[in-house]
Amino acid sequence: VAQRRRLRELVERLGDAEIIGDDSLEVSRAASLSGADAESISFLHRADYQDQLKTTAAAAVVLAPAHVGLTDITRVVTANPYAWFARLATELHPPRVAPVGIHPSAVIDPAAVIGQGVRIGALVHVAAGARIGDRASIGAGCIIGEEATIGADTLLHAQVTVYHAVSIGARCILHSGTVIGSDGFGFAPQDGRWIKIPQIGRVRIGDDVEIGANCAVDRGALDDTVIEEGVKLDNLVQIAHNVRIGAHTVIAGNTGVAGSTTVGDHCIIGGASTLAGHLTIVAGTTIAGGTTITRSIAQPDTYVGVFPSDRRGEWLRNSAHLRSLDALARRVKRLEKASEESIVKDET
Amino acid sequence: VAQRRRLRELVERLGDAEIIGDDSLEVSRAASLSGADAESISFLHRADYQDQLKTTAAAAVVLAPAHVGLTDITRVVTANPYAWFARLATELHPPRVAPVGIHPSAVIDPAAVIGQGVRIGALVHVAAGARIGDRASIGAGCIIGEEATIGADTLLHAQVTVYHAVSIGARCILHSGTVIGSDGFGFAPQDGRWIKIPQIGRVRIGDDVEIGANCAVDRGALDDTVIEEGVKLDNLVQIAHNVRIGAHTVIAGNTGVAGSTTVGDHCIIGGASTLAGHLTIVAGTTIAGGTTITRSIAQPDTYVGVFPSDRRGEWLRNSAHLRSLDALARRVKRLEKASEESIVKDET
Amino acid sequence: VAQRRRLRELVERLGDAEIIGDDSLEVSRAASLSGADAESISFLHRADYQDQLKTTAAAAVVLAPAHVGLTDITRVVTANPYAWFARLATELHPPRVAPVGIHPSAVIDPAAVIGQGVRIGALVHVAAGARIGDRASIGAGCIIGEEATIGADTLLHAQVTVYHAVSIGARCILHSGTVIGSDGFGFAPQDGRWIKIPQIGRVRIGDDVEIGANCAVDRGALDDTVIEEGVKLDNLVQIAHNVRIGAHTVIAGNTGVAGSTTVGDHCIIGGASTLAGHLTIVAGTTIAGGTTITRSIAQPDTYVGVFPSDRRGEWLRNSAHLRSLDALARRVKRLEKASEESIVKDET
Repeated sequence: VAQRRRLRELVERLGDAEIIGDDSLEVSRAASLSGADAESISFLHRADYQDQLKTTAAAAVVLAPAHVGLTDITRVVTANPYAWFARLATELHPPRVAPVGIHPSAVIDPAAVIGQGVRIGALVHVAAGARIGDRASIGAGCIIGEEATIGADTLLHAQVTVYHAVSIGARCILHSGTVIGSDGFGFAPQDGRWIKIPQIGRVRIGDDVEIGANCAVDRGALDDTVIEEGVKLDNLVQIAHNVRIGAHTVIAGNTGVAGSTTVGDHCIIGGASTLAGHLTIVAGTTIAGGTTITRSIAQPDTYVGVFPSDRRGEWLRNSAHLRSLDALARRVKRLEKASEESIVKDET
Repeated sequence: VAQRRRLRELVERLGDAEIIGDDSLEVSRAASLSGADAESISFLHRADYQDQLKTTAAAAVVLAPAHVGLTDITRVVTANPYAWFARLATELHPPRVAPVGIHPSAVIDPAAVIGQGVRIGALVHVAAGARIGDRASIGAGCIIGEEATIGADTLLHAQVTVYHAVSIGARCILHSGTVIGSDGFGFAPQDGRWIKIPQIGRVRIGDDVEIGANCAVDRGALDDTVIEEGVKLDNLVQIAHNVRIGAHTVIAGNTGVAGSTTVGDHCIIGGASTLAGHLTIVAGTTIAGGTTITRSIAQPDTYVGVFPSDRRGEWLRNSAHLRSLDALARRVKRLEKASEESIVKDET
Repeated sequence: VAQRRRLRELVERLGDAEIIGDDSLEVSRAASLSGADAESISFLHRADYQDQLKTTAAAAVVLAPAHVGLTDITRVVTANPYAWFARLATELHPPRVAPVGIHPSAVIDPAAVIGQGVRIGALVHVAAGARIGDRASIGAGCIIGEEATIGADTLLHAQVTVYHAVSIGARCILHSGTVIGSDGFGFAPQDGRWIKIPQIGRVRIGDDVEIGANCAVDRGALDDTVIEEGVKLDNLVQIAHNVRIGAHTVIAGNTGVAGSTTVGDHCIIGGASTLAGHLTIVAGTTIAGGTTITRSIAQPDTYVGVFPSDRRGEWLRNSAHLRSLDALARRVKRLEKASEESIVKDET
């Protein structure tokens, strides 16, 4: 059911690119080089995909000026092919939108405030005092708590849970199963039991934030948990209470950020990494996937802390020494001392 | 309310086993050796449980020919006791099934296609164009997106979310909170912001797949994310966009597989492990729990990459040297050189 | 809308503390030192926050006798300021409670048993044979399975899923997206396929347990999975089948406990840690965040197994040697032998 579009028109509409080849051809699909057919337009992101460029069935390909010579296929040449192709793919495959209006099975508290042009799916609950911004879309099965705020043009996929008093900005996208505003993990020990610290802060999420599936973002204990504008979180990410994630930082899946840690702007945090609590990570830091960070980072750089994997036999043999690495280092020191003495003795 | 069944009948029904002892006795429960009572049948899986075999109250026990001599209790002898016991336990404790039919509180779009003998629970939403296969069971609170396909005899427990155009095979089991078809994590940097790459691929799940609770399986960016037949995923597993998991591979809990990685057939991947993106893992590979894999694996073997834990004091002392391991290695090299020279000198 | 309360009254009500300064002042908010205003009461938990004490706008501060001299602000002096402040904050900011009664959109099976003073939110499903204890609160969108039991005064936030026959104690708190009672991950290999082991055990959760958002607690295979009283689990925690978590143990986010492992009472397990299966962890053990435990622990102590992170260049240089650590150790041994021989030679 995809519609054919003339390449010339698409390039005129999106700008910042020029065509080499047949600008009158028509495409209907954005595709990978290997998955393309004769109605597809594809893209070359990195030179290491150029083998696929040779065999692609795509009608046209988006690429950077440096790669123009790699093919004879009709090319769309642009400075940032990946971002340009992203906009093109959105043009060819616009996101599905639910019809404007409130599904009859949704339960909207009379004291909720619903904006203009809102789409609310089946079996949604919007509690008293909640505010749904203009043109926001709330997927089936979402639960919006009391006095929560959903910004204009924000899209909640099915089954998102938003606790009371949480505030979400405009143009955000939240994926299914994600929970915003659960209590932070705060308990005080007393007489061998744990006393719950009430979590009376909120969660504040800026504009243009995307959060993946089955994430959890806890509300603050006293002050708020804050996710600044443009942040992107992947699936199964845990953001603990009173964390602050700086603008335009991206965090890949299965990562956890412990309580009260501040991550600066424009950081890139790999998947399955762990940031301990009460740290400050300077803006522009990159953390490799699988890394545990236990100290603050003041110098923007790429940080890694991954144990190199190996075949089990080799791992057993090598890793056993980790438990006596200090002894090994001291043995080397002793040898150095003995060697020096022997040199001294030889020389005397 | 369990029903008593004569042992002889059970063995005749399931086949591939013979009884040593009283074949007329009756059992009503499958139980562990330590949890068994006089109406229970239990099993011995590995010889290291033979202490429990001595004290079990079970009426009968399933075991391998090699272990027949370990007890005088009535035995069911079979080549693969664990698998045989699994079938026996299913016979004694058949899964609960909801009544056939659609709960009156479920919201089924008129343009959805519902098979024969389907069970749809309370507060389910099935969107337009979705197809529910014959005898499938959709638990309470599930949300099935537009044009999604659920195969025959597939069981979705409560609160599963299936995005639009996802395809799930026959005889699958999906547990609660799991999300299939959320957007992959794809953004292109431009001018200090992240442009969303539309995720227009699908998720295709083969037959006989089981997926645990609170997992997330992302749809592909352009091509599809694929989970082949017989795959088993534990809880809280993250499968990123364009991943392919080969047939009959098992992945334990809290594991993440990053984008575009291909895992071969019959792999065993331990819990809390991480596979970086764009890797190829050969069929038959085993990866130990807690391991991060950053390079493709071409040789099937068992791979490990776990930092050995230790008491804090020891860990502090030993791990400190990891930050100067290269220096230590160079110091050893220098000592070796000095030692060689001194030998040469001694010999001259 | 917070209400002003006189400090003297609050201290009389909560006990175990005395006021130094103006006991007639009024406060309406519990706040952090840095987030406090003139109507706030704050607290000093550890001496390293004393800089914030100097600049706080709080009207009063809760602190320990040892810290009385650090400020002139009105002080509430008590032996355990953190726990006392927790009770104070609960007094000033009582938890939101839903109105008593059953929301008209909830679907309650006629064969469910609902206690006195229960609150059941919108779009909840309670299945046949389930029992909801007195004064329990079931948030919007929760699904309670057949014959599940929810204890008195227990609070389920929105979208919790409780499978059939699960038992949850009194005064528990479960956060959104959490799944209790999904099948354990049990499969027996046969002829290159995996046969499902039916999971016929249950989950039993004691009193005063709190479980965070998007956790998964599997039911037992044959025996039960058990979480004892007073346990606190953070978000995205995975508890596999037949695990037992001892009383008053706390487990931080993203942690996984594999099948049949027993964790003793009063353990503290940091975030993103992994406990392998079939282990026994003695009571009183502390495990640092990010640690993988592969052996049982018999001695209560603090255990760590984190690979220290470093800048990428340093990490590359140092970690490369881990794959030849055994060879390095043997080279040191050889040098020691050579050195001894040379000493022997020198001395002879």
